[in-house]
Amino acid sequence: MENGDIPENANEHCPGPQSESAGKSDSCAGCPNQETCATAPKGPDPDLVAIAERMSTVKHKILVLSGKGGVGKSTFSAQLSFALAGMDHNVGLMDIDICGPSIPKMLGLEGQEIHQSNLGWSPVYVEDNLGVMSIGFMLPNTDDAVIWRGPRKNSLIKQFLKDVYWGEVDYLVVDAPPGTSDEHISIVQYLQATGIDGAIIVTTPQEVSLIDVRKEVSFCKKVGVPVLGVVENMSGLSQPLTDVKFMKLTETGSSIDVTQDIISCIRQNAPELLNVVACSEVFDSSGGGAERMCREMGVPFLGKVPLDPQLCKAAEQGKSCFEDNKCSVSAPSLKSIIQKVVASMTTMTE
Amino acid sequence: MENGDIPENANEHCPGPQSESAGKSDSCAGCPNQETCATAPKGPDPDLVAIAERMSTVKHKILVLSGKGGVGKSTFSAQLSFALAGMDHNVGLMDIDICGPSIPKMLGLEGQEIHQSNLGWSPVYVEDNLGVMSIGFMLPNTDDAVIWRGPRKNSLIKQFLKDVYWGEVDYLVVDAPPGTSDEHISIVQYLQATGIDGAIIVTTPQEVSLIDVRKEVSFCKKVGVPVLGVVENMSGLSQPLTDVKFMKLTETGSSIDVTQDIISCIRQNAPELLNVVACSEVFDSSGGGAERMCREMGVPFLGKVPLDPQLCKAAEQGKSCFEDNKCSVSAPSLKSIIQKVVASMTTMTE
Repeated sequence: MENGDIPENANEHCPGPQSESAGKSDSCAGCPNQETCATAPKGPDPDLVAIAERMSTVKHKILVLSGKGGVGKSTFSAQLSFALAGMDHNVGLMDIDICGPSIPKMLGLEGQEIHQSNLGWSPVYVEDNLGVMSIGFMLPNTDDAVIWRGPRKNSLIKQFLKDVYWGEVDYLVVDAPPGTSDEHISIVQYLQATGIDGAIIVTTPQEVSLIDVRKEVSFCKKVGVPVLGVVENMSGLSQPLTDVKFMKLTETGSSIDVTQDIISCIRQNAPELLNVVACSEVFDSSGGGAERMCREMGVPFLGKVPLDPQLCKAAEQGKSCFEDNKCSVSAPSLKSIIQKVVASMTTMTE
Repeated sequence: MENGDIPENANEHCPGPQSESAGKSDSCAGCPNQETCATAPKGPDPDLVAIAERMSTVKHKILVLSGKGGVGKSTFSAQLSFALAGMDHNVGLMDIDICGPSIPKMLGLEGQEIHQSNLGWSPVYVEDNLGVMSIGFMLPNTDDAVIWRGPRKNSLIKQFLKDVYWGEVDYLVVDAPPGTSDEHISIVQYLQATGIDGAIIVTTPQEVSLIDVRKEVSFCKKVGVPVLGVVENMSGLSQPLTDVKFMKLTETGSSIDVTQDIISCIRQNAPELLNVVACSEVFDSSGGGAERMCREMGVPFLGKVPLDPQLCKAAEQGKSCFEDNKCSVSAPSLKSIIQKVVASMTTMTE
């Protein structure tokens, strides 16, 4: 069987924005449903005019993408938003992960609701200059599954762009679910007229994650969204020696905690070694990690962020990692990456 | 604004199988596109008859689901398949993650292609009794993004069920992408007539992941798929002390490798402590982790699998973790979980 066979056999609707530059894709020409089918690309869409109007008060739009899920994309989006707000910018954070919205929890906004004013839907505010929109604010019960096919997800994303009153915003950060499907095609399509500054792609170091990142870079190239850069997250676990627990396995299969014995041994014999950091490679980066992938694909590498249990905890608690010194292992790397992003966007604007 | 407002405003097509028990959902009644719209549920679908025929040689069907991505779902699916094949069962592994297929790499099958016989598409075989199907085998270039909206993804999943000749199979393991959208609704819908034994849900311990697992459990309950149980993956990092690197941070910000100093100190003063395991909590499980969530939601808890860099490496290399003794930290937990699954399915059949 030829490799090319499969896509031809599959349903031909909406092969993605790369072939929809003229509004409607060729494969929809002649289709009796093209005017009403929710999945078919529409012609001059009045909603796009409304979106362009709403977006006229938004200076920069950044997509945060990942190939694979669980690489810390939402954690990055949250900390990017905290950091930009901390630099006194007006920031909007829009969560378009419809089936698994993590943003409300990561911004400390669980249980909040969206309100309506005469200007439109109001985002939920963390601070005066940091507003957030997520389907997470709309579910009567957070345990409820949002069992929606693509068209319905796309429709909500359109509403987020069209009906939300963001006001004067310097940065709109859009946190997308993993993949290259409905949500991604739609956000690019809806923002096409107003422009997207670029995408930040988050990954972990191992090859199985990088395979999907390459797909994400290809997606950006195909749909014409500049790649601002790639972040390698969970790049090794680093933590103070004194945070590690040491267990001795017995012959019967049980384990004994010997943490105190190890610490005492070092304290008595080499106290200068107590204050060290234990580093573990969790995900195999022997293939060269994201840095090499970036060189190969010709996109900027923004830096590595170590896997830091304190950063995970900050995300769980909905806090900024820049607030106190608890995230000393990860916060400096995150800060330097965010500064690079801001600098590159300033250059682009000039 | 009422919480209930949003879903009403969104496109009403295909609210999911929970309202499609009669073949067509109420919201599609009267829609002019219901016969041709790719997203509308169809009436008696001739393809479903073809699927039922194909599936008549498949004894058990297991879905592997996760709320969030990156929790090790594909790694679990791969190791489950290796383990079942190792028990001399005939196993099929079907990857329905269309935009981010990880299964070919995790089974060591990168670069393989699907062949056609007079019986249909042939899976790619790892061993005589372990066949695999994935869109990853169909892409001319693995870097290519599959930029497909829902209908096209659904169509390919249907082909996987209808056109693949699995032969006599004891277990068909279906690895799904994260979420509760097109792929999930479709696989359940397509297999409705032939039955699904149940779903295994994989998660990590932290609350931000468990939020999404609760949604996944709700999904299973709504669509009538039994939850075989929940696996807590990456439940703390465990590795031999001798695999940890110790770094001392200097005042200038650079770091010095002091691993040898630490090891020598212990070897000289407490050699019995060299052979211990270093345990780190990576993801915050202070909320009680998956075990507590299972109690609350009334679904079985299958067990915890520690975050084991050797298991990540096995996945990267496409190997079974049961083959050698390298994955000593994770393999026993995985084995015990898989035995529980097999036992529960045997009970169900009896």
